[in-house]
Amino acid sequence: MKNDELFALLRRRGVLWPSAEIYGGTQGLYDYGPLGFSLKRRLEEAWAAWFVGLSHDYHLIEPAEILPEAVVRASGHLENFTDPEVTCDSCHSAFRAETILEKVRPEGVDGLAPEQIAEIVSANHLKCPTCGSLTLSVPRPFNLMFGVDWGVTGKERAYLRPETAQGSYLSFSRMWDVGRRALPLGIAVIGKAYRNEIAPRQVLFRMRAFTQAELQVFFDPAGFAVPFDRVREDSLPVLRVERRERGEETPEMIRADDLVRSGGLPEFYVYHLVHTVRFFRDVLHYPADRIRLYEKSDKERAFYNRIQFDVEVRLDSLGGYKELGAVHYRGDYDLTRHSQGSGKDLSVHPTGREPLLPHVLEMTFGVDRNIWGLADVHLGKEGERTVWKLPSYLAPVAVGVFPLIGKEHGAYALALTDELAGWGIAAQYDDGSSIGKRYARMDEAGAPFCVTVDGETLADGPAKDSVTLRQRDSRAQERVPRSELGNRILSGLRPPRPSRA
Amino acid sequence: MKNDELFALLRRRGVLWPSAEIYGGTQGLYDYGPLGFSLKRRLEEAWAAWFVGLSHDYHLIEPAEILPEAVVRASGHLENFTDPEVTCDSCHSAFRAETILEKVRPEGVDGLAPEQIAEIVSANHLKCPTCGSLTLSVPRPFNLMFGVDWGVTGKERAYLRPETAQGSYLSFSRMWDVGRRALPLGIAVIGKAYRNEIAPRQVLFRMRAFTQAELQVFFDPAGFAVPFDRVREDSLPVLRVERRERGEETPEMIRADDLVRSGGLPEFYVYHLVHTVRFFRDVLHYPADRIRLYEKSDKERAFYNRIQFDVEVRLDSLGGYKELGAVHYRGDYDLTRHSQGSGKDLSVHPTGREPLLPHVLEMTFGVDRNIWGLADVHLGKEGERTVWKLPSYLAPVAVGVFPLIGKEHGAYALALTDELAGWGIAAQYDDGSSIGKRYARMDEAGAPFCVTVDGETLADGPAKDSVTLRQRDSRAQERVPRSELGNRILSGLRPPRPSRA
Repeated sequence: MKNDELFALLRRRGVLWPSAEIYGGTQGLYDYGPLGFSLKRRLEEAWAAWFVGLSHDYHLIEPAEILPEAVVRASGHLENFTDPEVTCDSCHSAFRAETILEKVRPEGVDGLAPEQIAEIVSANHLKCPTCGSLTLSVPRPFNLMFGVDWGVTGKERAYLRPETAQGSYLSFSRMWDVGRRALPLGIAVIGKAYRNEIAPRQVLFRMRAFTQAELQVFFDPAGFAVPFDRVREDSLPVLRVERRERGEETPEMIRADDLVRSGGLPEFYVYHLVHTVRFFRDVLHYPADRIRLYEKSDKERAFYNRIQFDVEVRLDSLGGYKELGAVHYRGDYDLTRHSQGSGKDLSVHPTGREPLLPHVLEMTFGVDRNIWGLADVHLGKEGERTVWKLPSYLAPVAVGVFPLIGKEHGAYALALTDELAGWGIAAQYDDGSSIGKRYARMDEAGAPFCVTVDGETLADGPAKDSVTLRQRDSRAQERVPRSELGNRILSGLRPPRPSRA
Repeated sequence: MKNDELFALLRRRGVLWPSAEIYGGTQGLYDYGPLGFSLKRRLEEAWAAWFVGLSHDYHLIEPAEILPEAVVRASGHLENFTDPEVTCDSCHSAFRAETILEKVRPEGVDGLAPEQIAEIVSANHLKCPTCGSLTLSVPRPFNLMFGVDWGVTGKERAYLRPETAQGSYLSFSRMWDVGRRALPLGIAVIGKAYRNEIAPRQVLFRMRAFTQAELQVFFDPAGFAVPFDRVREDSLPVLRVERRERGEETPEMIRADDLVRSGGLPEFYVYHLVHTVRFFRDVLHYPADRIRLYEKSDKERAFYNRIQFDVEVRLDSLGGYKELGAVHYRGDYDLTRHSQGSGKDLSVHPTGREPLLPHVLEMTFGVDRNIWGLADVHLGKEGERTVWKLPSYLAPVAVGVFPLIGKEHGAYALALTDELAGWGIAAQYDDGSSIGKRYARMDEAGAPFCVTVDGETLADGPAKDSVTLRQRDSRAQERVPRSELGNRILSGLRPPRPSRA
């Protein structure tokens, strides 16, 4: 489906809609409805089960979303978290320089000085997209953080966090003290981040408030032991810098051990990269041939990142590969900066080792972007019907429960819905319109199962009453005893977990 | 425990700590560590299972946390969401008027004009708490919302939401369209709200960022049918206005049907009030004799609230009853204001009825406050040991898994931990120090079970290997076959659900 068509469908089904819609919407903000929120919560849980599940020493915390100015000064965001912004001297519209240069310089504006951007604008006679004038300004850096007036004096400044990662860095010292005092130590956060995007667009892809899931693993740079044998033979769809420089856009499959042996990547990095790909492919069910690991070059990645591969998935609605996650080897940048900024030495002293400042391996995941990705890839037309083929453990509704005739079978179906809910199953009662239309609604909602209560159910009597169980993907229907129903549905509802290191 | 003692324990155990602690903390913000976050998530799920579970027509959504100015103008927050603030003309410290008047006027400052407050300050010779001068100013209204510079022009203003409820009101129209187009319709939100408190204090009780769980039920004022027979005989611990006016502080037990018959309260209100009390008493296990329903008078409640009972629980750490939730009958205030503010008529047209503007019944719940409440009431010393007697479905760790001797039984215990985690059980491996100390750590974390793997386990062989299962509350230990372990632990992990209307 195209972007607009997909958004219209998601909006109509109450998956998501523009925030404050009755006021005309708030640019860059979206609300999740019941289906969207349920999917989002399940996606977050699947991410946590997988990534936090990678080790007994990885933990999930919930730090505050507001950062005092000293923190964003130390992290570099106050100075550097900017986007070059071009304004029109005629109509005063503002644009991201990247947007203005999109057609003449598709590779983006990273690394260009303001004067260089202005030169490209001028040389290509680029006009203001709003009024058409040739009066676009030299770009100025626009800080993307939202400032907040903090406290009562009017003198304090705080900021909505531009990324969840800072909360993990700030908590490292406390987590060290309350934990095993050993490395590696992983600190994960799932939560909102905020960016004052100059041009919010593509619905969930460039929002002003969005949910990230990020895992920061603090490790001893002298050695980060991982059970590499478990991943050695996995092949990864890699697009390395040298291949990109030859003009290639498609990835090549390279074995994990080759990425270490001849590819120059450390084992701990490849180990986590393999698990990241397994998550996208085996847990989220993105087709393997849509996934690529896009290596960022020296110039493209932030200066403190030593290695960076973005996880990209090809999405039809957005016309190409889109970044849905990434794995960053950040070195000791973060703890060094916060040691300086806070005045507290964040180096640690593991038993039997000299004191050291841990390095950081970061796994990032865009929750909203992946909701869009899961809609793009799994939601579509199949003949007459529209069906969302989500993995069962992500489906916002696990089972639709229908009475064949509302007046006759409604009470039984409602009680059954409650029984299933009591098992922790997201069961949804529906007695509106024909059974066919109810199947269609549940197909759109991604429910892997539907159950219909009919005259036979009631006639059977409580000991052996049976219902019709219908499967979303095969559309097969079968008669199932009520007593077996819970286990049949429950069996697919737990997200997969990796074997732990 | 006293407030400080309890906070020190929670901090030491990594339940929560001041945000940006290495920078000296951010006033009014706290981070949840692994135990705190796990407890918080379970508490949110228990709230949702109970309150959203009250009806098939109640739903959970996730609206954005940022509101454009037009929304808070319409809701009245821009004008009225203020606290009288007193400043000291000598040292420029700022205080809430309520704090300054605390001793001479314990009933608070609601309804007092600035001049009246200044008069009380002057008549009582109240000094600045910081510098001791008699130079406190006449109070001025201080808006508690955090403003955000929105967009790129510097001209737009937005606000961090001061309550989650607004997101439900803004979504009502969309939810009506995507749903059954029938009343009642319940829209619940669990998420952050933000208030620029003049004096953050009492740890989780007056924070600048906090988590609310709120359910807004939109209903037809001509009739909101509930199965009142199911609650008729429940007795509620009520402190009504007339009783308060006689100087009473203790509640009296009044039957639900008496609250309707002679108490003048509508059935739908009492029905939801009963379920609220059941939640606090039967789900969160607050002792019945610590709960009271504190009725707010005309003067005390917001002018749009027609009926308001706060749910208060007596907490030793804070020296008295504290508000942990509330039930508000808000009338049509919210939809009226947003109809005017947005220009979109929010009245609805249910089948067979004239168009009407729904009224709102609101159930609010302070997530952080209840985490504190659950620590106050359930965490304490019992002889030599400190134990957190949380209900199993709230416990951040469901089971601690120990090898008797790390080197010999560690691999088995780790595999068992993973197996239990695969069942969705929060299992935590611990091989540090003596078994006694590990029990002590799990007692403090509230884990209802501990499992020890020993030589006998390994000797038994895979078919019938058994472990020691130890229960937190009774401290009883028994030998349990591994095959039975999952079900034994799982049985208590689902939060209770009400029977649905």
